[in-house]
Amino acid sequence: MNVEIRPAKENEMEDVLSLINELAIFEKEPNAVTLTSKDLISHGFSNPPLFVCYVAIYKGKIVGMFLGYPRYSTWKGPTMHLEDLIVTKKMRNQGIGKALFSSFIKYSHSKGVKRAEWAVLNWNSDAIKFYQENGATIYNDWQVAQMNEKAIHNFILGNK
Amino acid sequence: MNVEIRPAKENEMEDVLSLINELAIFEKEPNAVTLTSKDLISHGFSNPPLFVCYVAIYKGKIVGMFLGYPRYSTWKGPTMHLEDLIVTKKMRNQGIGKALFSSFIKYSHSKGVKRAEWAVLNWNSDAIKFYQENGATIYNDWQVAQMNEKAIHNFILGNK
Repeated sequence: MNVEIRPAKENEMEDVLSLINELAIFEKEPNAVTLTSKDLISHGFSNPPLFVCYVAIYKGKIVGMFLGYPRYSTWKGPTMHLEDLIVTKKMRNQGIGKALFSSFIKYSHSKGVKRAEWAVLNWNSDAIKFYQENGATIYNDWQVAQMNEKAIHNFILGNK
Repeated sequence: MNVEIRPAKENEMEDVLSLINELAIFEKEPNAVTLTSKDLISHGFSNPPLFVCYVAIYKGKIVGMFLGYPRYSTWKGPTMHLEDLIVTKKMRNQGIGKALFSSFIKYSHSKGVKRAEWAVLNWNSDAIKFYQENGATIYNDWQVAQMNEKAIHNFILGNK
């Protein structure tokens, strides 16, 4: 199967956004995406860019992508975070996800990081199995905490 | 109680590292920290710096710190991540943690981010309670996945 994996271009952010929306629906958060393709262009192609994005191309069309960015561990130093890895539904189970994942790990390795990391939904057993088979460790004891824009605003109002 | 919260200086990274080690012991990973104070200086005071670090000063001594860095949400855009927030053991329960947390949230707000986020251990009920009381949401369905340096190396060897 002839799939090319390469860095995304500015004019591909509309397609990338479609994939982001497809993943949000899969993750049962169909209304969560408020970002626009214009935002993705201004954030991803700034100097320095806020993220790195690679696309998978099959027969001239974008059928998948990964998006990541650097993080920092106070135990190990610089790390890379995989925010999204998506293959469009009708192209799944053909090795494209593995090729994208491989590309992300190789990118991380080229940056000399001490760790690659990401989050996975606990009911996404196919993904968990895939990650474990490829050498990742899944931690059950860490939970994600978040404050959205409104929570931040409310906190600041209450803590002047 | 007269505690000052302000950006950390290069010559304070040794004290910051002591706090990082104290947190690692609390988190039951006493041997996890391989970073040195020299690493913290080169990573935190580079251009651009890889993280932001604020310290809490009481009677001329560093008694706590927070360390964070930017992340990116494909749903919301730029976010801030809180990697560590530590108050040294004998100074806990006096409001210093709240002052550091407040400083982090205000810093995040000043950067215009759409979300502040961090991870918390599921058995650290005091921290979870504190975060929830201050408006954070704790997600039980996301798990952390990681590949360490060795796992990255092995993956690349097996996927040339």
